Amino acid sequence: MKAVEWLGNSIRIIDQTLLPAALKTLDIRDWCEMVGAIKELKVRGAPAIGVAAAYGIALGAQNITAASEYAFLKKLEAIMDTFAASRPTAVNLFRSIDRMKQRIKQVEGKEAIIQALIAEAHSIHTGEIESTERLSYHGAELIRDGFTILTHCNAGPLATAGYGTALGVIIAAHKQGKNIRVLADETRPLLQGARLTVWELMQEHVPVTLITDSMAGYFINRGKVNCVITGADRITTGGDTANKIGTYTLAVLAKENGIPFYIAAPASTIDPALRLGGDIPIEERNPEEVTMLAGVRIAPSEAQAANPAFDVTPSRYITGIITERGVIGPPYDHTLPALLKEVR
Amino acid sequence: MKAVEWLGNSIRIIDQTLLPAALKTLDIRDWCEMVGAIKELKVRGAPAIGVAAAYGIALGAQNITAASEYAFLKKLEAIMDTFAASRPTAVNLFRSIDRMKQRIKQVEGKEAIIQALIAEAHSIHTGEIESTERLSYHGAELIRDGFTILTHCNAGPLATAGYGTALGVIIAAHKQGKNIRVLADETRPLLQGARLTVWELMQEHVPVTLITDSMAGYFINRGKVNCVITGADRITTGGDTANKIGTYTLAVLAKENGIPFYIAAPASTIDPALRLGGDIPIEERNPEEVTMLAGVRIAPSEAQAANPAFDVTPSRYITGIITERGVIGPPYDHTLPALLKEVR
Repeated sequence: MKAVEWLGNSIRIIDQTLLPAALKTLDIRDWCEMVGAIKELKVRGAPAIGVAAAYGIALGAQNITAASEYAFLKKLEAIMDTFAASRPTAVNLFRSIDRMKQRIKQVEGKEAIIQALIAEAHSIHTGEIESTERLSYHGAELIRDGFTILTHCNAGPLATAGYGTALGVIIAAHKQGKNIRVLADETRPLLQGARLTVWELMQEHVPVTLITDSMAGYFINRGKVNCVITGADRITTGGDTANKIGTYTLAVLAKENGIPFYIAAPASTIDPALRLGGDIPIEERNPEEVTMLAGVRIAPSEAQAANPAFDVTPSRYITGIITERGVIGPPYDHTLPALLKEVR
Repeated sequence: MKAVEWLGNSIRIIDQTLLPAALKTLDIRDWCEMVGAIKELKVRGAPAIGVAAAYGIALGAQNITAASEYAFLKKLEAIMDTFAASRPTAVNLFRSIDRMKQRIKQVEGKEAIIQALIAEAHSIHTGEIESTERLSYHGAELIRDGFTILTHCNAGPLATAGYGTALGVIIAAHKQGKNIRVLADETRPLLQGARLTVWELMQEHVPVTLITDSMAGYFINRGKVNCVITGADRITTGGDTANKIGTYTLAVLAKENGIPFYIAAPASTIDPALRLGGDIPIEERNPEEVTMLAGVRIAPSEAQAANPAFDVTPSRYITGIITERGVIGPPYDHTLPALLKEVR
């Protein structure tokens, strides 16, 4: 079963909000429904959002009724703008939309544009599958037999519509026969670690122990963790990295305790337009995600809560960035722009 | 309503597991029931456990049927041993039991011992009320107008059967008319922050915002936090401090970002017998507290989880320890033994 799949007139996704209690797919026939699915995290993870949005735009283009090509293009533009407003932090969404826009410019006629958009969405998807598989085997070289790896949130096949990033590395090392263990942060508020990471690793028979986010420091400080690996939602050309809230804390803990902290992400996660992490927009989500847990209210009614969904880890905390072109080290403001030139 | 109250033939406690949904008291008539209440966290917080256990021992003594004073003392010993085995980390429990044992040695005859134990339990309780109030006003001197204070777990009136430690300081500063705000970590797995700290601060009209434990780093790194204050479950004579899991991480984050990290605790929390944090026993609780929440399973069935309830913050991260004798600074291996001499 695939995280995201194009079926010709619809898009099939795994509804990630129902896992691990139920593994159910959802057939999306309307582009608006895909925008909703992205906002509600039915499909989530930076690369997977990019793939889902690309297919969603292609689906939207198919279903436009317009008297003229001009009207068609206007409606298509509006669809892309709506996707762009769905979630602000993961850059893959914006890179997908940019690629779709570039592709539109290269062809003429409604039918030709629709076919080109479908082809481009497939190409984005295939690109993510290939690059996440490649980065996973590059990253696996960093993992030694006997390692315990700590990860946060979910950066597996579900999150990438491919092989996985942080979990891709872990699964690749496991497939190489290395005896490894994983500590998975539950990742409040939405518990992607408890629900998705633990589930995906159990499917792959990788030994995994679930911990609360607050326990990571305990295990790192006791020497029980050999390295931390997470995914990323956006990396600046200077190496500052936005990822799920709590990632910055892990990077500080890793530095303080002298263990490596790695980001695993395809080059599509690098934003060529931003150099500094402070410029990455951070999504602020509904405070109810904090005051409620699994449908149960956990705080007094009327309690105020904050809910930033991401934080930014400054590049100086990052030992290496695991990409499809190998493991990139500092100084990131040289190595990442060089990588971007190679990939283009 | 008091966290713990002696009623003559029973002990009334607030059932802290039901908060904030319900504010209910529980009348405990049997010492075994008090052991259960401590294990299940119906009464919790290091000073409150010490008070509850002292009353529980007095209650147990009252209800012993024994043919001889020797048999009475044997049964009393067994009661105290059972309390000692209820929770391993908070030292206040063991200090209370030690005080009860000392008191028993000073009197003779079943009735006299019972009366002495009741008096000693009252004295422990009064001592905690007085010392937590005093430490709160010492600590309030550290809080400036406009401060945002981050706290973890619950160290308020409920946790201390008195004025509160970390929250005592915050409430005292608020009562002094200082315009302060609190960020409260929810404190997974058992959510004492979301359930109890937010509730207690709302009762006192202190502005409070609930965050997940993983968000603390985000706010500290953005300069939104002026200091961190937590309570403690056990402090060694070298200053290493056991407190709720997650506290060590906050101390590292505070150091990395150049803000003070304070522990607020009465001298009864200092363990005169231990110098190094590594020697503090850490309670490992049921993994279901991590995999379940309010009866809802949040992880795949068969998922493994770890559940250490406390961590140890090395003394070098602690800016000051707020006690009833004032704020104690490093070098703790000199200042804390000196404090213990004063208090005795």
